Amino acid sequence: MSRIARRLPAPIVVVPTMGALHAGHAALMRFGRRLAGRSGTLIATLFVNPTQFAPGEDYARYPRSFPEDRELCSKCRVDLLFHPEAADVYPAGFSTTVRESAVSATLCGASRPGHFEGVCTIVLKLFEITAANIGVFGLKDFQQCMVIRRMVRDLNLPVRLRFVPTVREQDGLALSSRNRYLSIEERAQATVLARSLKAAADAYAKGERDAEKLRGILRETIAGAPLARIDYADVVDAESLQPVQRAGTNTVFALAVFFGRTRLIDNHWLRR
Amino acid sequence: MSRIARRLPAPIVVVPTMGALHAGHAALMRFGRRLAGRSGTLIATLFVNPTQFAPGEDYARYPRSFPEDRELCSKCRVDLLFHPEAADVYPAGFSTTVRESAVSATLCGASRPGHFEGVCTIVLKLFEITAANIGVFGLKDFQQCMVIRRMVRDLNLPVRLRFVPTVREQDGLALSSRNRYLSIEERAQATVLARSLKAAADAYAKGERDAEKLRGILRETIAGAPLARIDYADVVDAESLQPVQRAGTNTVFALAVFFGRTRLIDNHWLRR
Repeated sequence: MSRIARRLPAPIVVVPTMGALHAGHAALMRFGRRLAGRSGTLIATLFVNPTQFAPGEDYARYPRSFPEDRELCSKCRVDLLFHPEAADVYPAGFSTTVRESAVSATLCGASRPGHFEGVCTIVLKLFEITAANIGVFGLKDFQQCMVIRRMVRDLNLPVRLRFVPTVREQDGLALSSRNRYLSIEERAQATVLARSLKAAADAYAKGERDAEKLRGILRETIAGAPLARIDYADVVDAESLQPVQRAGTNTVFALAVFFGRTRLIDNHWLRR
Repeated sequence: MSRIARRLPAPIVVVPTMGALHAGHAALMRFGRRLAGRSGTLIATLFVNPTQFAPGEDYARYPRSFPEDRELCSKCRVDLLFHPEAADVYPAGFSTTVRESAVSATLCGASRPGHFEGVCTIVLKLFEITAANIGVFGLKDFQQCMVIRRMVRDLNLPVRLRFVPTVREQDGLALSSRNRYLSIEERAQATVLARSLKAAADAYAKGERDAEKLRGILRETIAGAPLARIDYADVVDAESLQPVQRAGTNTVFALAVFFGRTRLIDNHWLRR
């Protein structure tokens, strides 16, 4: 794949994924197909990137389902599927990383040391390898979207970013490859993430602007699920990801909640 | 400058400099002109990059000579001169850096904390901004060449690197923008860098392979200049920049020597 086409009318759209694809990824790929059009190229990358897992996390047991993934990519009319081996992505002597240090400092960045350095490095590499001029990411990983946006701006990467709304189950649970880790009981209680976001959004809609009260609503709602253990439940600025005192037009409710060893994230963005 | 042309027959050649140009830079630009040909584009960048100066170094007093630089670029038939302000390169909120951690760990990397992180970050940015498909660097900054080569490989940057031999004064002193800091006495003694490299190279030519003995030759020769203070004088592998026990076909003699506050570097590469 050459880089010639970056600024040509026909776009090269990349959808980076770790595989174990679900309807959320399908939404990214279908949106990518629309952006690429008939003459552009839609590339999906499937790579469980070891460097974005913190020590002790689920890298080894992260779900892999390549045959099914390939079928879904085909259904979503992906032109090119990039599914490299870790040894090709990180050959012997590999020693260069990309680090964003502000937007990635809080929330998942605080809980998962090295995670966003792994994300920034692999995303930059995938942009370079695919010669993408458009990158598509899902807003379920809200902080990831903002960290990548900061990286693209800071490093002058000639890539436009497009973010796609979270896809949810009927009962509100955000789709995630990690949902398959949940026991039946955990799965039933996992709806508490979306419910707590809705409770806070309802309070905001009724005029509540005090961030600490909104955090309280998130935490109290989650506490109603006995299997849930909060990693963070915060009300932050959408650009800096720093906690705010008052919620406003660019505030995000952001959650990470453990069920057993399974860590789920979700968020609600009070868009401008 | 668009990125379209990266893989087109006409190259985009970038020569990154910090300005204060001398005949060494002119050699880079003339070589760049040959690589670019008639149809390609030769870009010189002039930017005293604050992030590659360690605390307490000479950022503020680093020589600036833009009118003369522009004239030399014109003589060397540079098509485009990129001379940005620091505030445009590093706007408010800038928080992303590129770090190489192996090749940059020794020599200048050990003496100048943060230096190569600053270099990698600005060079990647300049590659992206200029859409270069060829980058030209001088071998006087040998470790810099190897660090950038490692970064380009690790991050899959679609840029070919070309390295240009060091240009020297008649008495052997490697050209450097920092030579103008030297007093008359220091300038006279500064030839000791090139002389010590020649002494070690002569010993190698006569069969000496023991790296510790070659280091001894470097250090003893430099000790003959009373104003010289060695930062490092080492015999290292050209790829890893790690010290070797025996000199061979890909070994480098590498020096950093202070004269007063002025730090000079030089090297001799026993090429394959």
